[in-house]
Amino acid sequence: MSAPATRIRNFSVTALLGMVAVATTTIARAADPLPSWNHGSARQSIITFVERVTKESSPDFVPVADRIAVFDNDGTLWSEQPMYVQLAFVLDRVRQLAPQHPEWKEKEPFKSVLAGDLKAIAAAGETGLMELLAATHGGMTAEQFDKIVIDWIAAARHPKYARPYTQCVYRPMVELIAFLKANGFKVYIVSGGGVEFMRPWTAAVYGVPPEQVIGSSIKTRYEVGADGRPVIVRLPEIDFIDDKAGKPVAIHKVIGKRPIAAFGNSDGDFEMLEYVTSGPGLRLGVLVHHDDAEREVAYDRKSHIGRLERGLDEAARRSWTLISMKADWKSVFPSPTPDQ
Amino acid sequence: MSAPATRIRNFSVTALLGMVAVATTTIARAADPLPSWNHGSARQSIITFVERVTKESSPDFVPVADRIAVFDNDGTLWSEQPMYVQLAFVLDRVRQLAPQHPEWKEKEPFKSVLAGDLKAIAAAGETGLMELLAATHGGMTAEQFDKIVIDWIAAARHPKYARPYTQCVYRPMVELIAFLKANGFKVYIVSGGGVEFMRPWTAAVYGVPPEQVIGSSIKTRYEVGADGRPVIVRLPEIDFIDDKAGKPVAIHKVIGKRPIAAFGNSDGDFEMLEYVTSGPGLRLGVLVHHDDAEREVAYDRKSHIGRLERGLDEAARRSWTLISMKADWKSVFPSPTPDQ
Repeated sequence: MSAPATRIRNFSVTALLGMVAVATTTIARAADPLPSWNHGSARQSIITFVERVTKESSPDFVPVADRIAVFDNDGTLWSEQPMYVQLAFVLDRVRQLAPQHPEWKEKEPFKSVLAGDLKAIAAAGETGLMELLAATHGGMTAEQFDKIVIDWIAAARHPKYARPYTQCVYRPMVELIAFLKANGFKVYIVSGGGVEFMRPWTAAVYGVPPEQVIGSSIKTRYEVGADGRPVIVRLPEIDFIDDKAGKPVAIHKVIGKRPIAAFGNSDGDFEMLEYVTSGPGLRLGVLVHHDDAEREVAYDRKSHIGRLERGLDEAARRSWTLISMKADWKSVFPSPTPDQ
Repeated sequence: MSAPATRIRNFSVTALLGMVAVATTTIARAADPLPSWNHGSARQSIITFVERVTKESSPDFVPVADRIAVFDNDGTLWSEQPMYVQLAFVLDRVRQLAPQHPEWKEKEPFKSVLAGDLKAIAAAGETGLMELLAATHGGMTAEQFDKIVIDWIAAARHPKYARPYTQCVYRPMVELIAFLKANGFKVYIVSGGGVEFMRPWTAAVYGVPPEQVIGSSIKTRYEVGADGRPVIVRLPEIDFIDDKAGKPVAIHKVIGKRPIAAFGNSDGDFEMLEYVTSGPGLRLGVLVHHDDAEREVAYDRKSHIGRLERGLDEAARRSWTLISMKADWKSVFPSPTPDQ
């Protein structure tokens, strides 16, 4: 049995995630493919686009092979507030590993992490973050990291919603992925987050298999142990940052063709939307606008996470669709599950 | 219309390639899925493997999501003799570009290329090759390079077989790809060759879409021109060499799970086969052995192209299947087409 199947079998929240997946499948087959969406211009622009590219008699028809859609993850498919989920993982890992590293008590940025001083961590800047990433994401095999992620994401809870992070995904967007797939689209995630932090759970949660997940990565090396068993070793060194102009570069590198639809929420997605919507023929660019202070968090121009400024300024001129979470979504998260 | 569809429409050898594709499809549906294969242990080991991983009641059953097969390209799917096809492309490009570079007449390795001195080119080593790659593969947009490849591959002819290189593919292997696809496999090409040199034609010739092609790559940059049109610019700098231990690294990076079947022909594929066949559960490792001096070229241990030494030594111990081109294949290349 290959790794991913093992992953899912060992995944203690499988049942939980399965409920989301099953619900989504049922929804996609029902009369309304987007039941968590209010009727409005955002929903309509998405549906019209899909109709025009899938109808064979349409002048905008696109063959199945070219129906590629790309989605950002943090803030587009799941919550990125009050901090990126992967940062919560990093902080938890530092705390878990601290007993083996007594020197961290006196060494920044570890000292600040152990003290829970988020401001000091932020002040440590990129150098500090790289040190944290190296210590928590490198120095083990790919299989070991896979298990670490699976165990963490099963146990961790969102600080505000008090539910697993995999239940802090946006229900309307999960429906949207299923709707696109039902219409012959191949859906990719193109995230600034670490690719190996996402792959263990995206198939179960979003219906997106590991090979359709693109993200930031660290360098790896192929090694054969003394037992003759080959492993992929994760090195404490950044390979690629999949953000901003890195997104179209990664799309070209991995997919090798220009997608026809792109979904994001911040200026980190600007170039991806620009690249996708500049192609010839009908294209769709969509930004999730976090304007729902009551059900989620309202943030855009001034936010230090997921800042959306240029995207807001240029959306109209570029004919990009803005999703108002407040107006366009009936519900934000999946319904509470029995363990809530 | 997105890039790949345009590619195919502009492709002047489309009709030609179409014939291969149609023939293959018909074959896959007929009683014998591998009509160009002689009955023997190689064919049988492949068919038995596929039966065991696809039959639901089998203890070796693998779900569709995990049925990933990886194929080397040069020497495994198409001819790599008397030189790698991409090297023929490089030499042609240098000759085509020479009028714009009068300095090349006196400058190595260009001087040797223009003089047709293959030995001197080889003597220029890796540094010389990098200079040739930079001059012929960098300094243009991804779209421009795409068109250069399409035009070249439509016009170029194999020096010995006097037919397009896309007709110098191994018919039994094209049948094998179709057979695996018909059995729920996702087939990837994992080649030491340049990824953008393969992507423009692999869908038409092998039935493998651009996003399932992994190869060596050069660095690229995202740029927005004065006209507001974004492009991917190819830089004259190597990004990644997808050979030897680089193959499992690239498989892990792009696919994110361990394939269950691997096909190669040289020691450049050794680590890929080792990685794939070391996974848990039933695995298939296959090496194409070039032992047919009459219909192709007989080469293995001493060859400077596609050397197969360690693979031959360890195939039995590792339970890898050796394909004898001479004994196992009824025919090597597709039937001659009307333009032959």
